[in-house]
Amino acid sequence: MSILLNSPVDALQQYVEHPSVSADSKFASGVVGAREFACLRLKELGFDVDLVDTPINPIILATRGDPKWPRLVIYGHYDVQPPDPLDLWKSEPFKAEVRDGRLYGRGAADNKGPQIVHMSALARVFNEIPDYPIHITYLIEGEEEIGSPSFRGFLEEQKHRLMGDLLLVSDTGSPNPDQLVITTGLRGLSAMEVQIFGPKQDLHSGVHGGALLNPIQALMKVCSSLHDENGRVTVPGFYDSVRPPEQWERDELSKLPVKEEDYAHFLGVPDFFPPSGYSPFEAIRFCPTLEFNGIGGGYQGEGSKTVIPSEAFAKITCRLVPDQKSEEIAENVKNAIIKSCSSAVRVEVQIKGGGDPYVVIPPGKPGSNGKESVLMKKAFKVAEACIEAKFKNHPIYLREGGSIPIIQDLKELAGLDSLMIGLFTNEDNLHAPNESFHLGIMNRAIDSFEEFFKKLI
Amino acid sequence: MSILLNSPVDALQQYVEHPSVSADSKFASGVVGAREFACLRLKELGFDVDLVDTPINPIILATRGDPKWPRLVIYGHYDVQPPDPLDLWKSEPFKAEVRDGRLYGRGAADNKGPQIVHMSALARVFNEIPDYPIHITYLIEGEEEIGSPSFRGFLEEQKHRLMGDLLLVSDTGSPNPDQLVITTGLRGLSAMEVQIFGPKQDLHSGVHGGALLNPIQALMKVCSSLHDENGRVTVPGFYDSVRPPEQWERDELSKLPVKEEDYAHFLGVPDFFPPSGYSPFEAIRFCPTLEFNGIGGGYQGEGSKTVIPSEAFAKITCRLVPDQKSEEIAENVKNAIIKSCSSAVRVEVQIKGGGDPYVVIPPGKPGSNGKESVLMKKAFKVAEACIEAKFKNHPIYLREGGSIPIIQDLKELAGLDSLMIGLFTNEDNLHAPNESFHLGIMNRAIDSFEEFFKKLI
Repeated sequence: MSILLNSPVDALQQYVEHPSVSADSKFASGVVGAREFACLRLKELGFDVDLVDTPINPIILATRGDPKWPRLVIYGHYDVQPPDPLDLWKSEPFKAEVRDGRLYGRGAADNKGPQIVHMSALARVFNEIPDYPIHITYLIEGEEEIGSPSFRGFLEEQKHRLMGDLLLVSDTGSPNPDQLVITTGLRGLSAMEVQIFGPKQDLHSGVHGGALLNPIQALMKVCSSLHDENGRVTVPGFYDSVRPPEQWERDELSKLPVKEEDYAHFLGVPDFFPPSGYSPFEAIRFCPTLEFNGIGGGYQGEGSKTVIPSEAFAKITCRLVPDQKSEEIAENVKNAIIKSCSSAVRVEVQIKGGGDPYVVIPPGKPGSNGKESVLMKKAFKVAEACIEAKFKNHPIYLREGGSIPIIQDLKELAGLDSLMIGLFTNEDNLHAPNESFHLGIMNRAIDSFEEFFKKLI
Repeated sequence: MSILLNSPVDALQQYVEHPSVSADSKFASGVVGAREFACLRLKELGFDVDLVDTPINPIILATRGDPKWPRLVIYGHYDVQPPDPLDLWKSEPFKAEVRDGRLYGRGAADNKGPQIVHMSALARVFNEIPDYPIHITYLIEGEEEIGSPSFRGFLEEQKHRLMGDLLLVSDTGSPNPDQLVITTGLRGLSAMEVQIFGPKQDLHSGVHGGALLNPIQALMKVCSSLHDENGRVTVPGFYDSVRPPEQWERDELSKLPVKEEDYAHFLGVPDFFPPSGYSPFEAIRFCPTLEFNGIGGGYQGEGSKTVIPSEAFAKITCRLVPDQKSEEIAENVKNAIIKSCSSAVRVEVQIKGGGDPYVVIPPGKPGSNGKESVLMKKAFKVAEACIEAKFKNHPIYLREGGSIPIIQDLKELAGLDSLMIGLFTNEDNLHAPNESFHLGIMNRAIDSFEEFFKKLI
């Protein structure tokens, strides 16, 4: 365990340099490399490591300790987002580079850095207390960035190996390096792809233009019908199950040390566009979305090409809030698309998986039932204290806009509630060029987690 | 002139193998190669060849004969469309390949094949009649496929060198290899590109989704607002100057030996989508369009990437009919786009040039004024007879959906009316993968034009 103990930054650097992009099969060897790297670290920490096969990327399942002890499960993912657009990176996405107190590289913050934080803290703890009396199960998957399509099946088969008192996750965000967040909710996800097919091949737009419906035109009509002028999603039933936030959630959000104008500046947008009745910060956490993640069709090169393309596509994901259901929303969106599409073209909608939204009420907060496990009650209390000690600020309890599709599945099938401690910030550029992990957060977080694990026993 | 005289197919093969894509600067040397090839052929035919510089690709201007003779101008273009999508070509786009009576390659039909037809016919005529008593000016440009942006400026400076009695053009289509068309009109063109800019970089759609307007969503809204549900363009003033077709034009169109069901099958579309009141064949010729030639934005690779992209774009061209004006329509479309775009994103519309539509009334047809030049009157009559003799069918007089943006400019500035004889067919796949030129048409057309040139004197 020397690299985790002596040089967590070097460990992260090595982990990042395995290009483990799950969305693109040409990175298959990077996916293997990252997985092997994680397994090696867990073995060094004294875990029994197992690989559970899935149709895409195997899941790492590792255990340490006596099953009769209190049981903690720790989640992470070894896959990363694609690095595109490559030309906007200042350094190579898969050559981890340290500059200005940050480690740059795809996956540095999402989710390799936080994993190294947990492992390095455990390395210190195990070094001091070899017989650390909590049973830990490590669960590291390789399909998170493509919506965890294999996870539900894995869970149905293997849930007996994941029973426990609490799930620990660090795959969420915090507002800045001094103010951490304990995440109390995650949005769900529904992913789909629309393809519209027109003529059997690209056509000259002069020779044929006017006789037929251009597939891009059909796609624009269909996709633009999914939002009204105020940005509200028009899909029937879309908002039916949306539960409004609790008052204490709004109160906690008001403690967020970020100004709207600074956020607008960070995003670089001329104006916000939240649904009416919600601030931008509320919209991210409490409202569902329907986003177009990519579109393509026809000629995209330099200059112009007067063509009617044979097809066009849009990639869509919805972010969901309690109590929306991923499969139901995907079906509703699919039906709305098919219904609104002209019969002068052919439309196909593929549903690409997703996950339901998740909320946890921290023990003691209004609405909690007091029936949480002893480990869970202790963990939330200890986490709050250790974070405050090392970061000099009380953590804020907030729902987050992102999704970890499997957290709700783990709740539903293995009964696990989650303690989610956010270790990345907006400046880390997740899913974007120049992703990085803040080394100041990294070091303080290792100290905090060392204390956390020690005080948990 | 041996290659033109002895082996027109070899000449075309060589011409096609210069990849003269004007839209993409990486093909610059192919553009030079095609131009040099055309100049060499003209020199072999006894022309004095001049290259007139333009901001992009020089224009070939070549003359032969005594300026006091009747004056014929012949137009062509040495540039071609981009070859994308490359994976749909059965043979290399720039390795001309003869199979099944066709020569395959980008530019084979548009416009290199028809140029070789004219030149080969002239080679025979000049071989027999060295002092052929018609003054011929060859005008071959290299920017037709990008909307001839330099042509208007060239024409304003050089129009004195283009004065003449008639312009001969073969850059239009015919329904099949036995039925040629004399083209009496061309649609005009307005080209533009819309770019929508949102956040300063791609964002995680979970972390930020809901706070801001997705640029793709904004693009969809803007672009979909440009047509109504029936496909009619909604841009204010768009149809104001549209002149309905003459009755004789509808009568000629009724002679078109193509069935609607065969046309639908050729296109491979489930249904037509013409504006109400027009058949698909009428819509192509008599109605303006607004087409999306390409769109792009966000993640387009395999799988999904949950990103809010920083920008998105659409490439648009309008096809125009008399008496629409290209610049006016482009301005109207630009204004409609800017007006309908949300202020939560930034929009840019670049106008990329175009040309006005053109019509000619053949001498003797209803509406002709009888004041046409002697050469023009003779040329239409002789063309009809020579086509009928070699193709065994009377040509049909039809307007065409395509554009040759400079034809109306030549009418306006140099007073030239055009005799346009269509030598390609739908099966030639212009602007699409597997473009080809029908060698049966090629051979009969060389025979016809040999007769035409001889009977013109």
